[in-house]
Amino acid sequence: MQPKIAIYGTGNLAFHLAKRLAVVGRSPDYIVSRSRVSGESFIDALQLSSDVCLTAEMAGISADFILLAVPDAVLQTVLMEVAFPKNSILLHTSGAQPMKVLATHERYGVLYPLQTFTKSKPVDWSQIPVFVEGNNAQVQEQIADLAKILSPKVKLLTSDVRLRVHLAAVLANNFTNHLFVLADELLASSPVALNDLQHLIQETVDKAMRMPPAQAQTGPAVRGDHNTMDKHLGLLEHNPEVARLYELISKQIADRGKL
Amino acid sequence: MQPKIAIYGTGNLAFHLAKRLAVVGRSPDYIVSRSRVSGESFIDALQLSSDVCLTAEMAGISADFILLAVPDAVLQTVLMEVAFPKNSILLHTSGAQPMKVLATHERYGVLYPLQTFTKSKPVDWSQIPVFVEGNNAQVQEQIADLAKILSPKVKLLTSDVRLRVHLAAVLANNFTNHLFVLADELLASSPVALNDLQHLIQETVDKAMRMPPAQAQTGPAVRGDHNTMDKHLGLLEHNPEVARLYELISKQIADRGKL
Repeated sequence: MQPKIAIYGTGNLAFHLAKRLAVVGRSPDYIVSRSRVSGESFIDALQLSSDVCLTAEMAGISADFILLAVPDAVLQTVLMEVAFPKNSILLHTSGAQPMKVLATHERYGVLYPLQTFTKSKPVDWSQIPVFVEGNNAQVQEQIADLAKILSPKVKLLTSDVRLRVHLAAVLANNFTNHLFVLADELLASSPVALNDLQHLIQETVDKAMRMPPAQAQTGPAVRGDHNTMDKHLGLLEHNPEVARLYELISKQIADRGKL
Repeated sequence: MQPKIAIYGTGNLAFHLAKRLAVVGRSPDYIVSRSRVSGESFIDALQLSSDVCLTAEMAGISADFILLAVPDAVLQTVLMEVAFPKNSILLHTSGAQPMKVLATHERYGVLYPLQTFTKSKPVDWSQIPVFVEGNNAQVQEQIADLAKILSPKVKLLTSDVRLRVHLAAVLANNFTNHLFVLADELLASSPVALNDLQHLIQETVDKAMRMPPAQAQTGPAVRGDHNTMDKHLGLLEHNPEVARLYELISKQIADRGKL
């Protein structure tokens, strides 16, 4: 018998989880929502065969898995305020929260897809690593089986390592995006756009995936080209925060380059 | 009559310039090298029909363009020590050097391809922006015509703006690569590799090219999720330099997010 799945939430992650399950013929049994209207519009948008379950009614449903697809900031509140059915495996989907935040439940774990989700943008689940953890071996296996419905790239990961991976992802993505923001600001009112750098950026990403990025490092800092670095800092004279960032990263690149 | 081209240097950029010219049937007339051996092996490797010209013999050649393809740190020395033929248009290829460093020459300018070059890696010149500048309108036009042989993406750029573009490229590439290095370090001795983040990184790059990256920002800093940021900083307890970088970038993301 196929496991019964409830998805708690109607945000971006809930959307893509539900869509993926529907695509592989495992449409979730319940969409848990604070209001019937938002639950139904979610189900309509994805043409799911799910039932809406209000958060207040949760304790009464029969579900093998309850997937909490809510932001970290909301998770604590949900765990304090909502009564979950005792027999379900309760899962959160966060990179940064330890599994133990669910420890008041009997069977619990984590299903963390390493991706950034936007409703309007389709995702290729076959490329998304899904990291799982369970509070015992049997539960863990059941969670891994559920995860394999979503993606072939399933890995067991302890909470400590998952947090480390989450931090690495923040550096490689959120912080990288911030550098694109700064580049975009620098190019404003010039005839060059961030898009003109696309080919160069793609080359950097491609290289980092083919060889250790430490070996792929180029630029004035790793060359020790202080003349160019001084020119850059001159341009940032009226932008002390970005200048500090420039100095800090350049120093780290230079220090590593010397190894 | 086709212009005669001399490429000064035998490094990565010289290699890709010469290769591109050969591919479009405009094999450079001269490869300028400090030694006959290195010049000849360069010509052999690319199967060019060029002549080797030793730096000491330069003043005697007849070339319409001399493309200086040397690192910034070497450029000043070359300009002081080498006698160039008077009638050639002397070009440097640097993002950070002002055109004026060539001002002792009569006709001069800049041809700056916005790309990072590695000999072993083919490049798609049709995607590489080439920024040009000349010391007068006629010279500038001649340089633009030369640049169009290399790439369809030719733009005029003053030295000031070119330096700004170069800085933006350093942020978006060298610094981004450094973030990949840090992510790689964090993932060392975990079962997750930087390659597992490839799909996520690609999504970040793709998004930044489709919409202003400031709008695409995600992560704990822009959400004001201090709980997660504190956890990350806890992981970086024994890594104070990276912790400083984490705090600095997070603050910049948060400040911009508030706008």
